Amino acid sequence: MTSDHIVKAFDDQLNRLEHTIAEMGGLAETQLADAIDALLKRDSEKAAQVAVADVRIDDMESEVDQLAVSLLALRQPMASDLRAIVCALKTSAIIERIGDYAKNVAKRTAALSEFPPVPPILPVARLGRLAQEMIKDVLDSYVSRDVEKAEMVRERDKEVDTLYTSIFRELLTYMMEDARNITSCTHLLFVAKNIERIGDHTTNIAENVHFLVEGRFPLDERQKDDGSSFTVVRPTPKGGNAVKGRPS
Amino acid sequence: MTSDHIVKAFDDQLNRLEHTIAEMGGLAETQLADAIDALLKRDSEKAAQVAVADVRIDDMESEVDQLAVSLLALRQPMASDLRAIVCALKTSAIIERIGDYAKNVAKRTAALSEFPPVPPILPVARLGRLAQEMIKDVLDSYVSRDVEKAEMVRERDKEVDTLYTSIFRELLTYMMEDARNITSCTHLLFVAKNIERIGDHTTNIAENVHFLVEGRFPLDERQKDDGSSFTVVRPTPKGGNAVKGRPS
Repeated sequence: MTSDHIVKAFDDQLNRLEHTIAEMGGLAETQLADAIDALLKRDSEKAAQVAVADVRIDDMESEVDQLAVSLLALRQPMASDLRAIVCALKTSAIIERIGDYAKNVAKRTAALSEFPPVPPILPVARLGRLAQEMIKDVLDSYVSRDVEKAEMVRERDKEVDTLYTSIFRELLTYMMEDARNITSCTHLLFVAKNIERIGDHTTNIAENVHFLVEGRFPLDERQKDDGSSFTVVRPTPKGGNAVKGRPS
Repeated sequence: MTSDHIVKAFDDQLNRLEHTIAEMGGLAETQLADAIDALLKRDSEKAAQVAVADVRIDDMESEVDQLAVSLLALRQPMASDLRAIVCALKTSAIIERIGDYAKNVAKRTAALSEFPPVPPILPVARLGRLAQEMIKDVLDSYVSRDVEKAEMVRERDKEVDTLYTSIFRELLTYMMEDARNITSCTHLLFVAKNIERIGDHTTNIAENVHFLVEGRFPLDERQKDDGSSFTVVRPTPKGGNAVKGRPS
């Protein structure tokens, strides 16, 4: 085999690695969209399909791991190729986790379908769409090595955090209004939290894109916590609610 | 430099990598213990210290990443050494996340301290101790390459899932009994969920230990979901609660 052939084989394998990552990410994005759709339509069958399809994402993570390890062992890459492989390893682990969160969203369809719908399901669906766009954009930035686009994804996570905190408050007031809302609002709260975590994970991918292109992680550590950990809501005798939240 | 020297330098760096992982893990274990302690004692100062100390875990993850990448680039390791480096990369990312969960537990101390304590805080603290032991044992298994011990950690996660699901139900009934419990019980629910996720993450480290020693991941995919996603609790007019939960 000539040296040209070796270089070409290596490039092909690197491309396959990136292609698998992009495909995994696309699948995770679809999984989230399907999970939200199942939730809105109370479609337990669709929710079950999301859980089944998650296995494919897990398998793809193993494929990435194996390919990355064999590339490291056989090709002994340096500099930017080495960075590309390490980034692929880290990114596939993050996408696998995004898949898990989408699966968990879908799983709550059954419990939620046993109760009348509560209005906050609409902002929860909006939160899902925001996170979905972030997954799409961060993958685009990964494939096209676009640091600026990756940076915009990190910025947009603030929007997700703000909406999540407002959903948190809204759900608590619904619970206080009527005890029959408690179970469904609790499940919706976890759905919203899962989506908020997906937003955080897309920012981690964005940081990997930064590392991939610039050779270092972004200097400004984004604050990835939403403000809800500090939020306090109290029932009031007048039927309204006293809401108090300190941003983190 | 003789070849013996090169080998020794490589071994030293590999040892440093493992030492950093073990230290990171020990820190995450302490963080979880301190977070639970702050919660029980309503000690906001201690909770704030947990949040500050988390930065150290994040820094250590970067150290592991840099050391791993330089080992890959300069030493071009093969076989079991390559596995050790890839495992270190994956394990440090998991420990970083365990640290985040501990920090999030601590952060809810302020909101929880504004309300009278609710009895389920005790099983939540027990859940925390279980997860803490799992972190300790899985790190021991990592350092000593003990697959059997790692396997036992994976087994023990069932205990965490079962206790978490029972806490989930208990908290929902407290919310239904008195609307003034809703905010504190919601925060406790997230605390419990964070700890349950820590349990899941220790099983991921256990799987890495399996890969490290045996060169492949365990064949039986452990079901990492708790049963709470399907759990339904309804308030009843008699003051009791109808609880229904289907295991996943």
